[in-house]
Formats: sequence, C-alpha cells, structure tokens
Amino acid sequence: MNPKEPKVAIIMGSKSDLHVMQDAADVLKELGVDYEITVVSAHRTPDRMFSYARAAADRGIKVIIAGAGGAAHLPGMVASLTHLPVIGVPVKSSNSIDGWDSILSILQMPNGIPVATVALNAAKNAGILAAQILSTADEYLTRNLIAFKEDLKKKVEDSAREMESN
Amino acid sequence: MNPKEPKVAIIMGSKSDLHVMQDAADVLKELGVDYEITVVSAHRTPDRMFSYARAAADRGIKVIIAGAGGAAHLPGMVASLTHLPVIGVPVKSSNSIDGWDSILSILQMPNGIPVATVALNAAKNAGILAAQILSTADEYLTRNLIAFKEDLKKKVEDSAREMESN
Amino acid sequence: MNPKEPKVAIIMGSKSDLHVMQDAADVLKELGVDYEITVVSAHRTPDRMFSYARAAADRGIKVIIAGAGGAAHLPGMVASLTHLPVIGVPVKSSNSIDGWDSILSILQMPNGIPVATVALNAAKNAGILAAQILSTADEYLTRNLIAFKEDLKKKVEDSAREMESN
Amino acid sequence: MNPKEPKVAIIMGSKSDLHVMQDAADVLKELGVDYEITVVSAHRTPDRMFSYARAAADRGIKVIIAGAGGAAHLPGMVASLTHLPVIGVPVKSSNSIDGWDSILSILQMPNGIPVATVALNAAKNAGILAAQILSTADEYLTRNLIAFKEDLKKKVEDSAREMESN
Amino acid sequence: MNPKEPKVAIIMGSKSDLHVMQDAADVLKELGVDYEITVVSAHRTPDRMFSYARAAADRGIKVIIAGAGGAAHLPGMVASLTHLPVIGVPVKSSNSIDGWDSILSILQMPNGIPVATVALNAAKNAGILAAQILSTADEYLTRNLIAFKEDLKKKVEDSAREMESN
Amino acid sequence: MNPKEPKVAIIMGSKSDLHVMQDAADVLKELGVDYEITVVSAHRTPDRMFSYARAAADRGIKVIIAGAGGAAHLPGMVASLTHLPVIGVPVKSSNSIDGWDSILSILQMPNGIPVATVALNAAKNAGILAAQILSTADEYLTRNLIAFKEDLKKKVEDSAREMESN
Amino acid sequence: MNPKEPKVAIIMGSKSDLHVMQDAADVLKELGVDYEITVVSAHRTPDRMFSYARAAADRGIKVIIAGAGGAAHLPGMVASLTHLPVIGVPVKSSNSIDGWDSILSILQMPNGIPVATVALNAAKNAGILAAQILSTADEYLTRNLIAFKEDLKKKVEDSAREMESN
Amino acid sequence: MNPKEPKVAIIMGSKSDLHVMQDAADVLKELGVDYEITVVSAHRTPDRMFSYARAAADRGIKVIIAGAGGAAHLPGMVASLTHLPVIGVPVKSSNSIDGWDSILSILQMPNGIPVATVALNAAKNAGILAAQILSTADEYLTRNLIAFKEDLKKKVEDSAREMESN
Repeated sequence: MNPKEPKVAIIMGSKSDLHVMQDAADVLKELGVDYEITVVSAHRTPDRMFSYARAAADRGIKVIIAGAGGAAHLPGMVASLTHLPVIGVPVKSSNSIDGWDSILSILQMPNGIPVATVALNAAKNAGILAAQILSTADEYLTRNLIAFKEDLKKKVEDSAREMESN
Repeated sequence: MNPKEPKVAIIMGSKSDLHVMQDAADVLKELGVDYEITVVSAHRTPDRMFSYARAAADRGIKVIIAGAGGAAHLPGMVASLTHLPVIGVPVKSSNSIDGWDSILSILQMPNGIPVATVALNAAKNAGILAAQILSTADEYLTRNLIAFKEDLKKKVEDSAREMESN
Repeated sequence: MNPKEPKVAIIMGSKSDLHVMQDAADVLKELGVDYEITVVSAHRTPDRMFSYARAAADRGIKVIIAGAGGAAHLPGMVASLTHLPVIGVPVKSSNSIDGWDSILSILQMPNGIPVATVALNAAKNAGILAAQILSTADEYLTRNLIAFKEDLKKKVEDSAREMESN
Repeated sequence: MNPKEPKVAIIMGSKSDLHVMQDAADVLKELGVDYEITVVSAHRTPDRMFSYARAAADRGIKVIIAGAGGAAHLPGMVASLTHLPVIGVPVKSSNSIDGWDSILSILQMPNGIPVATVALNAAKNAGILAAQILSTADEYLTRNLIAFKEDLKKKVEDSAREMESN
Repeated sequence: MNPKEPKVAIIMGSKSDLHVMQDAADVLKELGVDYEITVVSAHRTPDRMFSYARAAADRGIKVIIAGAGGAAHLPGMVASLTHLPVIGVPVKSSNSIDGWDSILSILQMPNGIPVATVALNAAKNAGILAAQILSTADEYLTRNLIAFKEDLKKKVEDSAREMESN
Repeated sequence: MNPKEPKVAIIMGSKSDLHVMQDAADVLKELGVDYEITVVSAHRTPDRMFSYARAAADRGIKVIIAGAGGAAHLPGMVASLTHLPVIGVPVKSSNSIDGWDSILSILQMPNGIPVATVALNAAKNAGILAAQILSTADEYLTRNLIAFKEDLKKKVEDSAREMESN
Repeated sequence: MNPKEPKVAIIMGSKSDLHVMQDAADVLKELGVDYEITVVSAHRTPDRMFSYARAAADRGIKVIIAGAGGAAHLPGMVASLTHLPVIGVPVKSSNSIDGWDSILSILQMPNGIPVATVALNAAKNAGILAAQILSTADEYLTRNLIAFKEDLKKKVEDSAREMESN
Repeated sequence: MNPKEPKVAIIMGSKSDLHVMQDAADVLKELGVDYEITVVSAHRTPDRMFSYARAAADRGIKVIIAGAGGAAHLPGMVASLTHLPVIGVPVKSSNSIDGWDSILSILQMPNGIPVATVALNAAKNAGILAAQILSTADEYLTRNLIAFKEDLKKKVEDSAREMESN
C-alpha cells in the first residue's frame, strides 16, 4: 500500500475514518492509479499536517484526497497549504450531527481556496475524481475511466433486464 | 470570450446565473486559462446538454464547470455523460430555498459519478479548481497558482498591518 | 408484471429502490391499472433514460412514476424529456441525508418542468396519484378510487371502535 | 375568469396568496385550459372547504390546484374530501419559516391520500401539471404542451447564442 | 376508559400513534381528570373529524388533545372546527422526517386558529397542560398539579443525593 | 394597560419584543379579557422572573403568555416556577437564526413541564389561546370566541366573492 | 468524588445525562483538577438551581460545567445567576431532535450572558476547557495540558505509522 | 488599541469581520481588560496563523478570541496550536448559509481540542467570557463583571417600569 510513485495521497483525520476512506484506495487500485494512504489530523497533529501538505507536491503527489468528520478542517487546511487540487470527503463520523457539520465545514470554503467536495462518505467518488483529474493528461487513465463508466451502465442494464423479466 | 482553444467549459442552467458564474471566467482569465462560456439547461434543452457534454472531450475541453440552482441537475447529468472532471457550482437562485436544494442536488451524487462541488455561489473557486486540475500537467499554470496564493496572503497581511496600526 | 397495455411506467434509479417502489406496483394492481416496472438510472444509463422517456408516450404510457434517492435527478430529467405527467418518489436510500437531498432534488424543479412529488418513500401514494390522473377520463377507475377511499375510512372506524371499547 | 366549463379549480388559503397563485391561472390560459379561481380557507372556512371539495367532481372539475403557506392544510384536506387529483403549491407566505413548514405540511401526506406537490411558490408548474393530467385524454392539450416545451427550449437556445457571441 | 363525564378528549390520527398518546391518558388519570380516547383521522375520516370536533363542546369536553405525525393536519383542523382549546402533539411516526414535518404542520398555524403545541412525542406534557387548563377553574386539580410538581422535584433531589454520595 | 383584575399576564424577555407581543394584548382586549403586560428577562433579571412567576397565581393571574427569542428560556423557566398554564411565543428576534432557536428552546420542554407553544411571532394566537383557556369556565368569553371565529369566516367569504367576481 | 476543594462543578439536568457528563469528570481527574458532580434541574428544581448557582463562587468554585438536552435551559440560567464562566454541554438526550434543540438552546444566548458551548455530547472537551480556564493562573495545570496535547499527537502518529506500514 | 500588556487576543479571518468582532474589543475595554486585535486567516495566511498561535502564550496572552464565517477553521486550528483557552465567534458572513456553516465548523470540534463557542455574531459575549476566564484569578475583574451584570438588570427593570406605566 506504499507504492513506489504515488500520484494520489489519501489522508484522513482519524484511523476510525478508514472504513469510509478505504473505498478511495480500492477504486484507485481498480483504475490503475498509485496512491499512498495515512492519518493526518489537523487538530491533533497540526505540524505533521503542515509538513505533509507543504511537501506533497515536491514528492510527486498530484492530487490529495482528505476525509474528515464533525468540524472537519483537514481538507480546507491542506488546501490552504498547497497549490495541488484537494478533494474533500465529508465523513459521517460518530461525533457528527447526521453529517451536516462534516459537509458544511468542508464545502463552504472562502473564495481563493477551493476544496472539491464529494457526497457524504463518498470516498469512492473521491477516488474516481482523482483519477479523472489525472486523466486530463493521461490517455491510459482516460480509457480506464471510459471502461469504468461502461461497466456501471452494464450493471444497471442487467438489473433492468432482471426486473423486467420477473 | 470564445477563444481558439478553450480547455475549460463554463456552462450554466440559465442566463440569470451569469452574475454568479462570471467569477469563474474572470479568475480563469487572470490565471491564463482559455475557456468558453454558454447556457445549457438540463431541463429545458436536454438534447443540447447531451450533445454538448458528449462532444466536449473531443473538442479538447479538459474540465467542465457547471452552475445551477434549485433542483440543480446540470452538473450531475453532465458528469454522467462524460469522463471529464466536472465541477459543480450550487447557485442560490431566486427559486432556491436558501441554497440548500442547490447544494444537495449537486453534492449528493451516487457512487460512480462524482461532481467536484464548491461552496454556494463560489464560481471563483470553481475557476481556481479548474486551473489546479489543469496544473497537474502544466508548470506554467502551477507557477500562476503559486503566485495567486502568494497574492491572497499579501492582502491579508496588509489588512493585518492596517488593523494593528489603528 | 409486463402486461399487454401498460398505462403507467414505474422506473427507479437502482434495483435497491425496489423495496420502496414495489408499493406503487401493488396499489396499481389493486386499483386495476396496468403498469410496467424497470430500472433506469439517470447517472449510469443516461442514454437508456433518454430513449425510454422519449419513447414512453408513443408506447401508450400515460403517466410515469420515477423513484430515486440522494441527488435524485431521474424524475426531473424524465420530465424534461416527455410531455407526460411525471410523479417523483423521493427514496430515503442509504446514501441519502435523512431524505432531505432526495426530496429537494425532486421537488424544487424550475418553472416549466413540473414533477408531481409525493412524500418520502411514498410510492403507494405515487400509484394512487397515477390512478387519479388516469381516472380523469376513466369512470371505472373513478369508482375504484372511491371504493378505495371508503375502505381507508372503514379501517379507521374499526380502529376507533376498538380503542373506544377498551 | 369564471368560464363556462372550468376543468381546473385553483384555490388558495388566503387572498394574500394570489400574487403567487395567479401564475397557475396565467399558464392555464396560455395552454387553453378553462379554470376557476377562488379563496377557500381550511382553517377559517372549514365548512366551505368541505362543500367545495365534495362538490367539485360533480361540477365537472377534473383537477384541483390548492396553494397555502405555513401549516398548510388546504391541499391535504381537499385531497381527503375528493377522489380527484389534487396539486399542492407550498406558498412562502409571511408567516412561513423560509417555506419549510409550507413544503412539509403539504408534501408529507400519509399513505392513501396523495397530494401532487410542486416546488415552493411554483404555481406555474402546478398549472402545467394540471394541463399534463388533462392531456392524458386530450390530444389538443398534448400538442399545446409539446409546443410549450419547444418554446422553453428556443428561449434557452437564444440565451446560449447571445452569451456565446459576447 | 370511557368514563361518565370526560372533560378531555384524546384523539389521534392512527392507532399506531397510541404508544405515544397513551402517556396523555396515563397522566390525566394520575391527576384525576376524566378523559375519553379514540382514533380520528383528518385524511381518512374527514366526516368523522368534522362531527367529532363540532360536537365536542356540547358533549361537555373542555379540552381536546390531538396527536398526529407527518403532514399532521388533525390538531389544526380540529381547532378550526371548535372554539375549545386544542393541544397538538407532534408524533414522530414512521413516515415522518425526524419529526420536523409533524412539528411544523402542527405548530405553524395561521393567526386566528391557535394550536397549543407541545414537544415531539410529548403526550405526557399534553395531558399535564390539559389539567393546567382545567385547573384555572378547579382548586382540586390545582392542588394535584402542585403535588405533581413537588414530586418531580423530589425525584431530582433523590438523584442528586445519590450522585453526590457516589 | 394595567387593569384592575388582570387574568392574563403578558411578559417578554426584552422591550424589543413588544412589536410582536402587542398582538396578544390587542386580541385579548378585543375579546374582553383583562391583562397586564411587562418585561421580565430570564437571563438579565432572574430574581424578578422568580418572584414574578411565583407570585402570579396568588395575584389572580390564570394564564401567562411569555415571548422570547434566541435561546428563549423565559417561557420554560416560568412554567417551572408556577402551576399555571404558560403559553410560549417564539419571537424571531434579531439575534435568532431564522427563528429555529426560538422555536426549539420553547417547544422542546422535558416531560413534566409543558409550555403551550404557538407559531413563530404568533402573539395573536397566544392571546386567543389564553382566552380559550379562560373560556372553559366562562360562557361570556365562549360567546366572544364563537363570534370571533364567525368573523374570520366572513372575511374569507368576502375575499372569495371578490376574487370570483373579478 | 466529592473532593475537599473542588474548583469545577459539573452539573446536569437529569441523572440520565451522566453517561455523557462522566467524560468531563474523567478528564478533569486525568488533568489533576478537583471537581464535584451532581444533578440540578432547571425545570424540576428551579430553587435548587438558584441557590446552587448563587452559592458556587463563594464555595470556591471557579468554573461550572452544565449539561442538558432538549430545551436545555440549565447552562444559560446558571450563567444568568453567577459571574463565573459557565461551559454548556448540549446532550443528545432521548427527547432531543437529533441534538439541534440542545445545541441552539444552549448556544444562542443573548448579549450579556455568555455560555461557552462545546460540541454535542462533548463533555470531555468541557472538562479540558475548564482546565484551560484554570490554567490561565496555574502553571502546573498548564504543563499538564501541554502534556495532554502531546499525548494526543503521539496517538495519531502511532495510527499513521500503523496505517502506512500496512 | 495596541496596549502594553494585552491579556486577550482578538483575531478574525478577514477584515470584513471587524464590524462584528469590534463588539468584543468594546466590551473588554468597558470591563478594563487589555487586548490586541488583528487579522489572521487560516486559509490565506496559514504560516502567520501558526506562528501567531504558537507564540501567543509566551507573549503573555491568556485567552484568544477568534471569529470567522463559512467554513470557519480559524478558531479550531488556533485551538490545535495552543494550550490557551480559545473562544470561537461564528460570524454570519456574506458567504455563509444563514450562519449554519459558521456555527457547525466552529462548535463541532473533536474530543481533545475544545473551542468555547458563543452565539452567532455574539462577539460581545466572547469578550465577556474572556473577562470571566481572567476573573477566575482577578478580583478586580470579578467586581467589574458583577457590576456589569447589575447594570444589565437595571436596564431591564427600567424597561419594565416604562412598559407597565404606559
């Protein structure tokens, strides 16, 4: 899980977010994108967050996926510390109010510092979005994404046939 | 406004969204990114939306920014029709309930079809995010983004000095 | 379940919505209305949605019931593609935020493209509403609906008698 | 405004709702549907509501559009009193909490008694939906609705051309 | 449970609300107030609701407690049909969105027709409030209410002693 | 405004609430109920609140109407200090979040201590409810309330006639 | 648990809040701060609340932590009765609407009477905050707090190492 | 405004927050507490935020008041960087959704890192709370706070007399 040349960094505020964030890792693997994954807490390890975010671009990271819950400051703070695109995953953690706090504190960034926010707990979509971003300069990835979409379509068509024949 | 080789397409559900979406165009211009801008309505021109979204990649578009309000289906539907990264701007339009409908109908996409959602009315951040995406393979843009961040910092430092000296 | 002359089409964004949407089928059967039922995903099978919605009227469909959850675009997009009345069922799916996203992204359609929205998970009411629509030109159905209402009343009166005699 | 053979009844809880509900009347006129319009208050004239709703079908009314705000009981109560399809328009009246009360007290009807709810203040869509319902047995209306949709499309295309040529 | 001279009527929209509404009956019994309890559905038995509410005062009822969930119209409609004080209990029923719809459709009554609303599922408080209303002309009930309050206080003081001595 | 034998006390947390609470006074006057009106702040004059609430019943007060906004503790605290029925008016004050805080901190009282809550800013309904409570032992007031309801009905019927004749 | 010289008082509206509020006691013990803990109900024991809050400063208490749920008046009322800093813990009790009522009725205090509000159920943070307040004049506590923060950091770093090495 | 020995630091995310945050400065001055005030942006000047927060305690600062709006990360991040008590002021800035995002992203801090949150825009209460914190070891401040409370009481009593004599 610590590949030679990761293009995508997946970070989360707590190891308890892993059951959500693992989906990002899985879909990146499926799409053929190297990634790294670790814990970085904005509130409990601010220095680690600073050095991690500041060093990411120089280490060859192209996109950062950050997941957090409650007053979720990790995605926005990482975005303030790097020029790389940052994807935020609002996690419906145990201390969250139905996810509203996670969503609003990731989504509502001020002008100048965007975070590309995906749906509540949608780490899989964060992984796909990271691949889409990399695919803007990578034809191999583009083909994989087109195949991925084709596969989604096929599964729905199978469901449709099954339901219609009942 | 119809440059020779636009990399970013800015679309919106209604021309009444232009006062919000123009910010995306302005910041892309400031960052040196070519774009095109037009109206595409998911609900009133579904065929146009289909052909526009399907053709975008072949025309050289790399990122699509889509803004809409109320039951805002444009960003998600465009994302379903292309493998390009799609950035969604929830617009607080006159028929929106304080923006909650705009946000939720753009953000809460199902697994498989991400939309990179920014804050309510934050078209400027959509533009910056588009530039960040393109910068993953463009050093010139990277430098511009770093300078842009530096400029944001300077403005705050000026405010700070001014307030401290009062 | 694939009758000779369906007047009502019941579609849903995912086969996981069937446990909710089956109620529409059941009540239509009870009221004596032919229907068809299948899966059509706005986001994963946009072409299928286009051709399905565009062809429905010509196939003799008079009313479309569409259920979806989260950023629920299916009802509104189908409404944009046909002149038939479309009934939307907000589904409280697993990826929904207590159903708020499902409701708002179905209900808050822009002027020009209505979706007749029913309560969260209220597929049964969607079926009744479809029958009411057809009954505007069908006396047999009108009688069935009047009997259906009479039956609802009887059940409450029975409950009342039971509670009063305790 | 009191035509010989109205097919659609437009009612509202208070004359102060007329500035919203007039849109339903206007679009019905545009689409060539006869209607009547009046005030019926669930809370201040319950007898009038009872007799009005009970008599509507016999007077030849086919669809009832009911608008109300706050604890908006008119659409649901009318639906309980008739087998006709009832369309509810949540009105953002002065005593409403941003429209949430109006929406929820119209939309969330129990199983057995549907109300076809449209967006907040969307009386125009209520009118279109009434026409769609009648069109299920009226080819003239069907053609008008198709033309109406075509017109919506044209206006967006004009906007698009204008924005693209700037 | 059908006493000779009930002063308070407890009604509910569905027998499934009984597990909540029973608390009103229990506390009224504890406080020495005669009551009756039954099912009256605004939407499924509108005639019954009309005749029940209209006849209540003449039968000697002084206060009506009405519980309902979802688009909860029973308390407000009963209030429109009688001059008696009506207490509304928002029930968090299975078809309710976390109780918000129940609360708003009972609480937000228009000027002229009040409903005395208590907390979500707080049928016990509805019973106490009914007793308080009757106590404005009944010294025996006043004494019971004062004793009831004294008892509440004692229980907290016992808890306090217990916690302090741990 | 300080009549000889007030039956109803109208209190509010701040004189800035008077523009809302005056409606309670006005409707009580119209219905022929004596009242007193003053400012009692739970947070700034807790002693005054204690003595006022504790003394009210002995002074002949039968019902207390309490209005407050934001973290509105006045109605609930007064209810904790007296056995009289307390009506709470959530005020949408300048420091309130669209009234939600006012509503929830008045409505959601724990079991044992009810507050009869009316709609946001609905001081008029609080006054009517106070009269209804007193009317349970006062035939004169009952007749006034019946006449008041009749008057509401007449006004709607006039509106209806006017709209129908346009 | 009733130490000789408590500096912090932990109070709660009901013994059923103890499973939440115990966290405050535990962390204070860990940080070396003496505390007392008991039940004080604003609504059921208003006199006890008055005397407790009024006497606290003279007994040597420096900070009060008050937890409550629903219409949570305890923290704000205690703050009105003492000049000591009061920390409010919104408890997601069984009668609370997902905690929104608890939060808003504690947080939204009027100008003049602050309550230092922490996150929903975050009694642990209330304890830490109380220690931080006392540490402004206590170097021993300051060192404990710095060590506590260091410990938080270490745990995250351990998680990070563990995840990276998988 | 830059006194010799400030005990309280007032910081805000943007100079546009000053119209709200000035209230904190004013009440601290009234209470006799020295403070400093400046702009520190979490997102645009993360380095400045780091050094400011890390250095505050050594410069003699005892309490930090931090105001911010939207995805408001400043209070929580400062709290992560210092052991001093941090008071958060949610600002209803122009980019905020009615203040909900500001509140939730300040209030809902994870266990370990408290922020003492006050009401929306309640900078005055933040100032009072800072004074209360300092007063735990300062008798002069304690007397000022008691006098401040007495003054609040007097103003309400004056309002009461005025309203009662009308």
